[in-house]
Amino acid sequence: MHEDRIDTGRSETEQAIMDATLNALAKHGYADLSIQNIGTEFDKSTSLLYYHYENKDELLLAFLDYVIDLNIATIDPDADDPDAEIRKFVGYVLPPKDQPCEHSTPPGLDELDLFQRVIFELRTQALHNEDYREKFGEMESYMIETVSTLIEREMEAGNYREMDADMMAENLMAFLLRTLDMRVTQTRPESVEAMRKSVYFLLDHVMPIDGQPGDVATSNVDLDL
Amino acid sequence: MHEDRIDTGRSETEQAIMDATLNALAKHGYADLSIQNIGTEFDKSTSLLYYHYENKDELLLAFLDYVIDLNIATIDPDADDPDAEIRKFVGYVLPPKDQPCEHSTPPGLDELDLFQRVIFELRTQALHNEDYREKFGEMESYMIETVSTLIEREMEAGNYREMDADMMAENLMAFLLRTLDMRVTQTRPESVEAMRKSVYFLLDHVMPIDGQPGDVATSNVDLDL
Repeated sequence: MHEDRIDTGRSETEQAIMDATLNALAKHGYADLSIQNIGTEFDKSTSLLYYHYENKDELLLAFLDYVIDLNIATIDPDADDPDAEIRKFVGYVLPPKDQPCEHSTPPGLDELDLFQRVIFELRTQALHNEDYREKFGEMESYMIETVSTLIEREMEAGNYREMDADMMAENLMAFLLRTLDMRVTQTRPESVEAMRKSVYFLLDHVMPIDGQPGDVATSNVDLDL
Repeated sequence: MHEDRIDTGRSETEQAIMDATLNALAKHGYADLSIQNIGTEFDKSTSLLYYHYENKDELLLAFLDYVIDLNIATIDPDADDPDAEIRKFVGYVLPPKDQPCEHSTPPGLDELDLFQRVIFELRTQALHNEDYREKFGEMESYMIETVSTLIEREMEAGNYREMDADMMAENLMAFLLRTLDMRVTQTRPESVEAMRKSVYFLLDHVMPIDGQPGDVATSNVDLDL
C-alpha cells in the first residue's frame, strides 16, 4: 500500500479487495470478470470476498463507490487557491506541455492509467444498468459543479472576468473527457494536443481578468503552448 | 428495407446481415453477442452467415466497416453549401432547439439511436483491440478533417472569419461527442443543453464573419438559443 495514498475510509481488507478488483478488471475486462479472478489478485482467502459482498454485482458497485470517493478527493470546492485547484485537477488529465509527468498524478494514484482504462470500460455499463448510470452521473456532476464553484470564487475575488461559470465548467469538462477518451482508446492521438491548447487557452487567456478574451480558434494571440 | 436508405454498396444479403447484427448487438450487447443470436435476427439460414464470414470477429469488423461507410455518408467535404453541410452534420447529434426532431435523422437512418448505442459499446473494444482502434480512428479523423475542410472553404469564400480550422473542428467534435455520450449513457442530461449552447454559439456568433466574436461563457451576447 502507498504511504501517501488517499484515505477513503476503507478498512485494510476492503482496500485490499478494491485493489484486487482494479487489477482483475484491468487484466480481464468487465465481460470476463469473475469473483474467482478477483480472488486470484487477492492475497487472502477468496471466501473473504463472499463474506463482504453477496456477489460480483454488489462488489462492483462497491468498487464504483470507491472510484467516486477517489475522484471526489481530486478536487476540493473549498481549496485555498481556486485557480490553482482547477489547474491541479486539469493537470491530472492534461498537464501543461512542459510540466514533468510526475506532477500530473494524484498522490497515491500511481495506477492512474489503469484506473482510467477500467473506469472507461465500466462506464459503458451505464447503457444497460440504472445503478451505474446514477453513480457515474453523481461523479460527473460533482466534478462539474466543483469546477463551477471554484470559477465563481475567482470571479468574486476579481481574478476571473464575469462569465457563466456553469457553462465554462461544462466546456472544460467536455475537453477533459475527450482527452481521457483519447488517452484510453488512442483512436486519434493528435486530438489530445488540440484539447490541451483549448483548455489552456481558456485557463490562461479567457478566464483571467487580465487575459486576452476571444476563443482559441479565432484569436490572434500568439499561443505559446 | 427503407426506400431512401443510404446505399453503401452492400449486396441485399450483406445488408440483411448488417441489419441483423445491429439488432442483435442492440438486444444482447457486445459481451453476449453470438453468431446464433445474429442468426435469430436474420430471416435466412444462419449457415449463410458462415458462408459470408469466417467467425463472429470477422463479421463484427465487417459491421464496423459498414458503420464507417454510413458515417462517411453523413458529411461531404465537397457539398455545395459548406455552412449548411456543417449544420446538417451537427444537427444529427444536436438539432437547434426549435427544430422538429424529424429533421435530425439522416435519410434511411431511423435506427439512429440504436446505432449510437451500439457504436458506443463497440468503441470500448478499442481498448483491447488494435483493429477497432484503427477503424474508429479512421472514422473520427474523416469527420474532423471534413469539418475542417468545410470551415476552410467558408473562410476562403469570405463567410467565416480567419481561424484555425483544425482547432475549431476539434472543438466542435469534442462537444458533439460529449453530447452523444450523454444521449447514450444519460449520466448527466443537463450537459446536453450546455453542449447545444456551446456548439450554436460557435456556429452563429464565433465563426461567421459578421458574428460577435468571443466565447460562450464570457460573452455578453444575448444568447437566444
